[in-house]
Amino acid sequence: MSPRRVIGIDAGGTKLVGGVVDEGLGVRHRVHRLWRGGDRGEVLDVIVEAVEEARAAAPDAASVGIGIPSLVERETGASMFSTHLPLEGVPFRDLMRERLGLPVYVDNDANVAALAEFRAGAAQGARHVVMLTLGTGIGGGVIVDGRLYRGARGGGAELGHMVIDEDGPPCQGACPNRGCLEAMASGTAIGREGAAAAAREPESALARELREGREITGALVTELAHDGDAAARDVLERVGGHLGVGIANIVNVFEPEVVVVGGGAIAGGDLLLEPARAVVAERALPPSRDLVRIVPAHFGGEAGMVGAALLALDEGGV
Amino acid sequence: MSPRRVIGIDAGGTKLVGGVVDEGLGVRHRVHRLWRGGDRGEVLDVIVEAVEEARAAAPDAASVGIGIPSLVERETGASMFSTHLPLEGVPFRDLMRERLGLPVYVDNDANVAALAEFRAGAAQGARHVVMLTLGTGIGGGVIVDGRLYRGARGGGAELGHMVIDEDGPPCQGACPNRGCLEAMASGTAIGREGAAAAAREPESALARELREGREITGALVTELAHDGDAAARDVLERVGGHLGVGIANIVNVFEPEVVVVGGGAIAGGDLLLEPARAVVAERALPPSRDLVRIVPAHFGGEAGMVGAALLALDEGGV
Repeated sequence: MSPRRVIGIDAGGTKLVGGVVDEGLGVRHRVHRLWRGGDRGEVLDVIVEAVEEARAAAPDAASVGIGIPSLVERETGASMFSTHLPLEGVPFRDLMRERLGLPVYVDNDANVAALAEFRAGAAQGARHVVMLTLGTGIGGGVIVDGRLYRGARGGGAELGHMVIDEDGPPCQGACPNRGCLEAMASGTAIGREGAAAAAREPESALARELREGREITGALVTELAHDGDAAARDVLERVGGHLGVGIANIVNVFEPEVVVVGGGAIAGGDLLLEPARAVVAERALPPSRDLVRIVPAHFGGEAGMVGAALLALDEGGV
Repeated sequence: MSPRRVIGIDAGGTKLVGGVVDEGLGVRHRVHRLWRGGDRGEVLDVIVEAVEEARAAAPDAASVGIGIPSLVERETGASMFSTHLPLEGVPFRDLMRERLGLPVYVDNDANVAALAEFRAGAAQGARHVVMLTLGTGIGGGVIVDGRLYRGARGGGAELGHMVIDEDGPPCQGACPNRGCLEAMASGTAIGREGAAAAAREPESALARELREGREITGALVTELAHDGDAAARDVLERVGGHLGVGIANIVNVFEPEVVVVGGGAIAGGDLLLEPARAVVAERALPPSRDLVRIVPAHFGGEAGMVGAALLALDEGGV
């Protein structure tokens, strides 16, 4: 008998990553899509196409798990709200079941990433885990005593929308708040701070890239920081400090054993995590701050996909 | 057979409230103590004396529940850390069992207050509840799907030490942080803002009280606000706004059905809660912000004592 396989889809704020995942969490037949910036219909079409592409390669895949950047209603799998995709009020799970003719399981993208890191990644063995995914935005996932925390209906664990500076910069997308962790420590924030540093420091590599016409993104700042540009390193240190304030809050609020940091911006590695750890050591309450480990994600950019597959494997990928 | 009774003690940051509590949550034989500002030994003596006083009135009381303003280790009932009493590293439960010769159950003071409001108070019927106690500091208690959330070892739910302004004023007691909700929205913060307003606005009733030699405390500001003093009302409105930023964070992080606000500072009532509700409506994410009710505590200053008694009644008051 061949091992049971499912399709995992991580439909993040800027791109989709999918694949066919077996019970040992081996991944094959990867699929990738960038959003074409479209409306609700186009976003749903892209997801369906991606599933169909994976399914063509693995017709035995018995069910589909999908992570979306939304507040997902636990009971119905509906997308109640999304800051980054036009998915507000979409009966997502039912709609996907109908279009795909397969069992479909849906949760928030950072929730499923947390599930992957908890079960088989950087937080294996811990029972109390918090995951932050640093990308365009910041997603949050919380494992409480071995189970995903979802809140009253499924909208909980939006850790990116925890304010750390009440008079800070406006948040992004459809979030009405300001000074959210997402506004201060996401990949987008790294890009914004990098652009400001480029303007301020004409001798920096950042400024040179800007003069050569490149857009200052979080990824570029991170690359230049690894290459040793002092201005870019300063940006990661500052942003890492904000991240540390957020993680200190998480330590005081949840007392986790492990905080896993993933998403594209974790490419900064210790250039981002070391300043964050220093701030947690300085600002969080003992003894919780001494208990917690702050570590990069094991599954990197595939945590969401693997976690989405786990959702399907868990919930009955018959 | 007479109903089972236990002793409940709320040993808060500034004072102790205790009583004999029966299974119907009727309270008799209340005891009160103010800390004499002493060291560890004196604090422990005061607690023992208070229990003995209640016990003298109700010799049938079978066990004791105690809430303390500490991070309490779940397994051992030890006080791992306290911002407001000299109880760091005290094997509190074992020590009290030995001195009292009775079964003793211990938890964080705001945790037990949350338990009381959830079981029999303002949050009855809800499954996801957050409690904030606004006094000298701010305590937090979280009920997740009907159970107290404690974190990995018991140090979780320190919601007062969630930063909402990373460059804000230093926090209090032994907290090393700054801009914590406690530093911005506690009774102490109301007093501090009131003193600043008194200095700024010589025509205000606040300034008049100051000239007459009274200390500007949170309680005095609240009293003057109820009397209609505009400066005092402004203080409550501003502090209520900070409280709203903190509750918006709580809404995004936990998605509770009810947030209960208790502690001495809730004497401000809607003068404090209305500005908080307005900020939550403006800044928290839909639909979580539309689900949540933000209400004053039912048990007022006795929530901690009743909750401590519940702990004892639950966990085996023989």
